[in-house]
Amino acid sequence: MRSHLKVAVLGATGAVGREFLDLFKQRRFPIDELRLLASPRSSGQVIDGLTVRPVSASAFDGIDLAFFSAGAARSKEWAPVALQSGAVVIDNSSAFRMDEDVPLVVPEVNWSSVQASDRLFANPNCCTIILLMAIAPLRALGKMRRLIVSTYQSASGGGAALMDDLVQQTKDLVEGKAPKPQVSPHVYGFNVFSHNTPIDDTGHNEEEAKVMAETRKILDQPTLQLNVTCVRVPVLRAHCESITIEFEGRSPDESQVREALARFPGVQVVDDRQGNKFPMPSDSSGKNDVLVGRIRRDLDNPRALSLFVSGDQLLKGAALNAVQIAEQLLVDRPNGLSAGPIQVTSG
Amino acid sequence: MRSHLKVAVLGATGAVGREFLDLFKQRRFPIDELRLLASPRSSGQVIDGLTVRPVSASAFDGIDLAFFSAGAARSKEWAPVALQSGAVVIDNSSAFRMDEDVPLVVPEVNWSSVQASDRLFANPNCCTIILLMAIAPLRALGKMRRLIVSTYQSASGGGAALMDDLVQQTKDLVEGKAPKPQVSPHVYGFNVFSHNTPIDDTGHNEEEAKVMAETRKILDQPTLQLNVTCVRVPVLRAHCESITIEFEGRSPDESQVREALARFPGVQVVDDRQGNKFPMPSDSSGKNDVLVGRIRRDLDNPRALSLFVSGDQLLKGAALNAVQIAEQLLVDRPNGLSAGPIQVTSG
Repeated sequence: MRSHLKVAVLGATGAVGREFLDLFKQRRFPIDELRLLASPRSSGQVIDGLTVRPVSASAFDGIDLAFFSAGAARSKEWAPVALQSGAVVIDNSSAFRMDEDVPLVVPEVNWSSVQASDRLFANPNCCTIILLMAIAPLRALGKMRRLIVSTYQSASGGGAALMDDLVQQTKDLVEGKAPKPQVSPHVYGFNVFSHNTPIDDTGHNEEEAKVMAETRKILDQPTLQLNVTCVRVPVLRAHCESITIEFEGRSPDESQVREALARFPGVQVVDDRQGNKFPMPSDSSGKNDVLVGRIRRDLDNPRALSLFVSGDQLLKGAALNAVQIAEQLLVDRPNGLSAGPIQVTSG
Repeated sequence: MRSHLKVAVLGATGAVGREFLDLFKQRRFPIDELRLLASPRSSGQVIDGLTVRPVSASAFDGIDLAFFSAGAARSKEWAPVALQSGAVVIDNSSAFRMDEDVPLVVPEVNWSSVQASDRLFANPNCCTIILLMAIAPLRALGKMRRLIVSTYQSASGGGAALMDDLVQQTKDLVEGKAPKPQVSPHVYGFNVFSHNTPIDDTGHNEEEAKVMAETRKILDQPTLQLNVTCVRVPVLRAHCESITIEFEGRSPDESQVREALARFPGVQVVDDRQGNKFPMPSDSSGKNDVLVGRIRRDLDNPRALSLFVSGDQLLKGAALNAVQIAEQLLVDRPNGLSAGPIQVTSG
């Protein structure tokens, strides 16, 4: 099986799609045939010598494993087709994340939620993954009852077009010209704005709602309290998060926290108080590990502890986490990723 | 008196110093003689036709009112001299902020803390002022017991040199060159880093410690709990803050909060959920008002409420607040700002 995997990537021309291709090479992912797919509009491009084909009813014929990263609408449309064709689907969109029957997985955190019969896997929101990587290692140190999170999100979450827009606006600004936002809803160069997803009646945007709901599902802790503020900053491809955790009891000591984080796979502690060196996008960009630092107990609330985190939005926040799900499946299912055609029941 | 005020500015060549000069003109501040002062190193420049003189023992002779913005060390050295000369001093540095005998003032918030005999006034830290402008209007709606704050701080807090450094680094980056930080401790273009003041044994940096201590003093609430994370973002001259307030009882309704904020002088509510328009540095830069939005009650904690705030660091965060202190003194003390020479007792 390992030497005969037929893999499809839907959304191959996007920012996350490109990362998949790099990761397959870097990690020697066992691919026999790679099929690049995109919407009809984006198809036709040639990437690494492969022509990107338009997604269609027959596009998943013979495919063992499909990575989806083309938005929730396309996932809802094509995941049932791919599953029906017998493929295992790892979906980076929000389409199935909150479906009870679909595991929402950060492999280091909740692999135990995966069942042998699962064929469709949801990759969490980028902020959720980066948050989870920082807090999951602390579960053994005490029960968490509340998280307060403010994000510093990069352009890559809005895709390659937003990254290009940020660069062009910034060029214009340093040259003394007026910036002309193409895809960003506001001036983005040298600016900060509240995450531009729709706001619900409670005043929370969609991004915040995702982080709250997904975190509860992944931690399997429906009563966990969350307060999340999602904000874009003019950074290209790594997110930061300022996190305050409240425990049921006294917050653990900083040394215990540092130790638990350092032991956790995929986490790197960057917490040099003397050198004033903490997690930064310039260090986390292009890195697989999530960087965690500014580890400190709250001075006034004995149950609280704060962290500052940075992780690559396109890697651990998206493509890498999806590839890791596939890699773990290869370990767990040596006789084949999928038993055969199945039907998706919800969406 | 109003037509005969002799005013000195120490630190006239700095980013805040320049704002003082603009504000004097814009606000028709009643100046008879303006004396620009700086360290010997920075003196000699000509600004608006005035030669910047080196600060000296006689530099404050005849001065009624001195604005200091040249760092804490220079304030400690020269404030006693200026006071001894009979001047009233409004100090933008941290030198005297926590002195019991020195009022730490945001005029809209705690003018009542000023006594008739006060001759030395401390201007709070920029983050403190912007935070206070957003939360002080809510005091009437319920007692606050805790604030959780994450900042998005601009380059101007590090002075004109850091602003220039950010622009130059960004230019290099968009041209594909390696950035060469001159004054920033890390790459600053397209990056985010933890505030680069020294970290104490508790893991908090000096900026965070200032915001916590100053907020308690200004609100005259020594037991107020604070959790503050100070972070620099690549923005030129306006700070943002993500603020969660916990009240002793149930948090007030959003409509009450919006009303209280809208009524408060110096605050502008920017909270357009439909248009996804909230406070941003691009809107607050160059504005006197502090912009407040993202007003929403916590979904899980009935005592908590969150806000997102943006304010110009050089204006309300520094020079404007100092000028407003002086303006209020002119109203309160029609017969003269200062009764005569006094001695500074601590520092």
